[in-house]
Amino acid sequence: MSIESYMNDVGQRARAASRQLVRATTEQKNQALYAMAEALESARPYLQQENEKDLVNGREKGLDAALLDRLALNDARISGMIEGLRQVASLPDPVGEITDMVFRPSGIQLGKMRVPLGVIGIIYESRPNVTIDAASLCLKSGNATILRGGSEAFYSNQAIAAAVASGLKTAGLPEDAVQVINTTDRDAVGKLITMPEYVDVIVPRGGKGLIERISRDARVPVIKHLDGNCHVYIDNEADLDKAFRIALNAKTRRYGVCNAMESLLVHVEVAEAILPKLAAAYAEKGVELVGCEQTRGLIAAGVATEEDWYTEYLAPKLSIKLVTDMDEAIAHINQYGSHHSDAIVTQNYSKTRAFMTEVDSSSVMVNASTAFADGFEYGLGAEIGISTDKIHARGPVGLVGLTSQKYVVLGDGHTRDN
Amino acid sequence: MSIESYMNDVGQRARAASRQLVRATTEQKNQALYAMAEALESARPYLQQENEKDLVNGREKGLDAALLDRLALNDARISGMIEGLRQVASLPDPVGEITDMVFRPSGIQLGKMRVPLGVIGIIYESRPNVTIDAASLCLKSGNATILRGGSEAFYSNQAIAAAVASGLKTAGLPEDAVQVINTTDRDAVGKLITMPEYVDVIVPRGGKGLIERISRDARVPVIKHLDGNCHVYIDNEADLDKAFRIALNAKTRRYGVCNAMESLLVHVEVAEAILPKLAAAYAEKGVELVGCEQTRGLIAAGVATEEDWYTEYLAPKLSIKLVTDMDEAIAHINQYGSHHSDAIVTQNYSKTRAFMTEVDSSSVMVNASTAFADGFEYGLGAEIGISTDKIHARGPVGLVGLTSQKYVVLGDGHTRDN
Repeated sequence: MSIESYMNDVGQRARAASRQLVRATTEQKNQALYAMAEALESARPYLQQENEKDLVNGREKGLDAALLDRLALNDARISGMIEGLRQVASLPDPVGEITDMVFRPSGIQLGKMRVPLGVIGIIYESRPNVTIDAASLCLKSGNATILRGGSEAFYSNQAIAAAVASGLKTAGLPEDAVQVINTTDRDAVGKLITMPEYVDVIVPRGGKGLIERISRDARVPVIKHLDGNCHVYIDNEADLDKAFRIALNAKTRRYGVCNAMESLLVHVEVAEAILPKLAAAYAEKGVELVGCEQTRGLIAAGVATEEDWYTEYLAPKLSIKLVTDMDEAIAHINQYGSHHSDAIVTQNYSKTRAFMTEVDSSSVMVNASTAFADGFEYGLGAEIGISTDKIHARGPVGLVGLTSQKYVVLGDGHTRDN
Repeated sequence: MSIESYMNDVGQRARAASRQLVRATTEQKNQALYAMAEALESARPYLQQENEKDLVNGREKGLDAALLDRLALNDARISGMIEGLRQVASLPDPVGEITDMVFRPSGIQLGKMRVPLGVIGIIYESRPNVTIDAASLCLKSGNATILRGGSEAFYSNQAIAAAVASGLKTAGLPEDAVQVINTTDRDAVGKLITMPEYVDVIVPRGGKGLIERISRDARVPVIKHLDGNCHVYIDNEADLDKAFRIALNAKTRRYGVCNAMESLLVHVEVAEAILPKLAAAYAEKGVELVGCEQTRGLIAAGVATEEDWYTEYLAPKLSIKLVTDMDEAIAHINQYGSHHSDAIVTQNYSKTRAFMTEVDSSSVMVNASTAFADGFEYGLGAEIGISTDKIHARGPVGLVGLTSQKYVVLGDGHTRDN
């Protein structure tokens, strides 16, 4: 079969499964998730055997240590996937909720019903655990899923797919509700993102290059997370103790995460009071600093180039810029930032209102670390990603972000006259 | 200036204006809308003089009567635009609303703030009144707008743009908040839909061909309305009086609208009782009927081809199909319909639940005419269109559909430990 017809077949099956999933009860979906957890538990030796094939191939291909590590399905990772499935089962089911039901002057009752999106395509790199994360969130939200993992994880993903299929079968749900693409042909991705008749939305997970490529070529909507170039702005009316704690936490809690601060903006009036103290704390943690001219007059720091202000380091590195007022900070964030998560530290009430209104980011923080931008911290339970888009879902995307709302109209023979 | 650099300039101005609009108060926005209404009022002679240029050109080009009619800015149409501006001013402002504010276990307060999308590009055919509709809804929802109307309405749109600009100026808002493209070069559209750095969303309004072309080529999200192939399904447990009224109203209230019924599905058990009566009523209104084999055994109707089931006639024509149960009706609607608005007529409670859940349309009606699918009937006040997409806005799109939500986090020095 050609890739074209294989993918058409996958798409048709997914669409058909999604029609059945709409009828699935919460209990059935949860039963499937628990059964998948059990299937993974019993398949531990098989999963590791199949994963070993991927690791052997990966070593032969010369994958670097970080990639091999993400690829490995050790016992702890399998336990993590099992635990993840049980957590998703315990989350409330968003599907079917009817809200805002009102009588209209015409006599009809109008409300909004929360419904699955339909078919979701997930494209991700070689982290087999994403297969379970994505499948479980999509299933719980009533969506059929087509999963396309990195080719380096081929055998691992197929083994996980078998456990997923057995869980679906146990619960009496269609096995096509979760399909894992069984070819490593790259054309499969090209086809997956250009079948609007079968796929309602694409969620790419991986590096910026992958996501930009997919967004450019897709013919269906894409829920995407590009980068997290997050800022903390320390205002001249900040409580400097809070500012110190927040600026330190936002940068040094973890370096490789999208909600880490990458640029620190400091009001000139308080720069001398706080920057040397912060610089010492960063030095202790091994954080490399680059800064604007004025910053470099106060602390030891390399030269920050124009490029630095745009950069998400994902590393122990920070760019620092002095600003003369909040407006300059807001303009800088809106221009150079990635509309992910940005914070102000200030005790001035009016400034908090303006900052919240004017900063165009998916999360805007007042006197809190950007590190809070996270599905678990926000109470979503789990997230399929953090969207830096404005359309549909913005910020951490959990189960609700994988649904839509349709209008329902209840009449009793009502017709429209005018 | 090349089209490329002209459009880049327009985009940059729009982005800058959108940053200022975020700060605009509801009062300022309303003041601008009222001032635009006044400016249109005083510009009546000028508007008609400029419109006459378009009409003369149109007649020379041989535009058909329907197009010339839509192009004409007679006194009633100008009054309609003025009235529209005042109505939008009277609608509640969705921007700034903060909902779902809760304390999280970490101690932060988390809520969602409703915010403008940013910059909206509107592409439409030669109906000058759309210029005002679109500009007013986008402005009230805090968005900057780039408008590209049909080239046949060039002079009319430029004249309207002058009134809009004067209204913005009166209210102290940036004139770049609403920009009307001043070239008829088609490359301007190609550029407008591929500048994600300046444009957040595109709303095309016009024929299906235009919308499909824009959706295919756009590099930014598109809120679109494709077609309205709406169904009414008359169940064997329907109240046949209600069914008669609804099926007649859904088809014959108006023919050229997207919420008109195009296909009628009738349970075989009640077909004999209701179809002849309906056929007589349709005949009286001059509605042409086509149907399946079984339908044609009961009433006089042409042969419905496979193509008919997919077709939005927008005309006094209706396709009729008999089905053996509700499941067949639902499957037909989901396969052939356009996910716009579909209705069931039945007195059976359980069937209403199943129909509402399983029909994958932006509006699902129970015992009510599809004609209710409309922004005014739904209480949105005005609509920029009816979205047949599932992502972001589904169904009639009013002011709220032109906004997004961002997370706001209020702390008091909060940092994240784990």
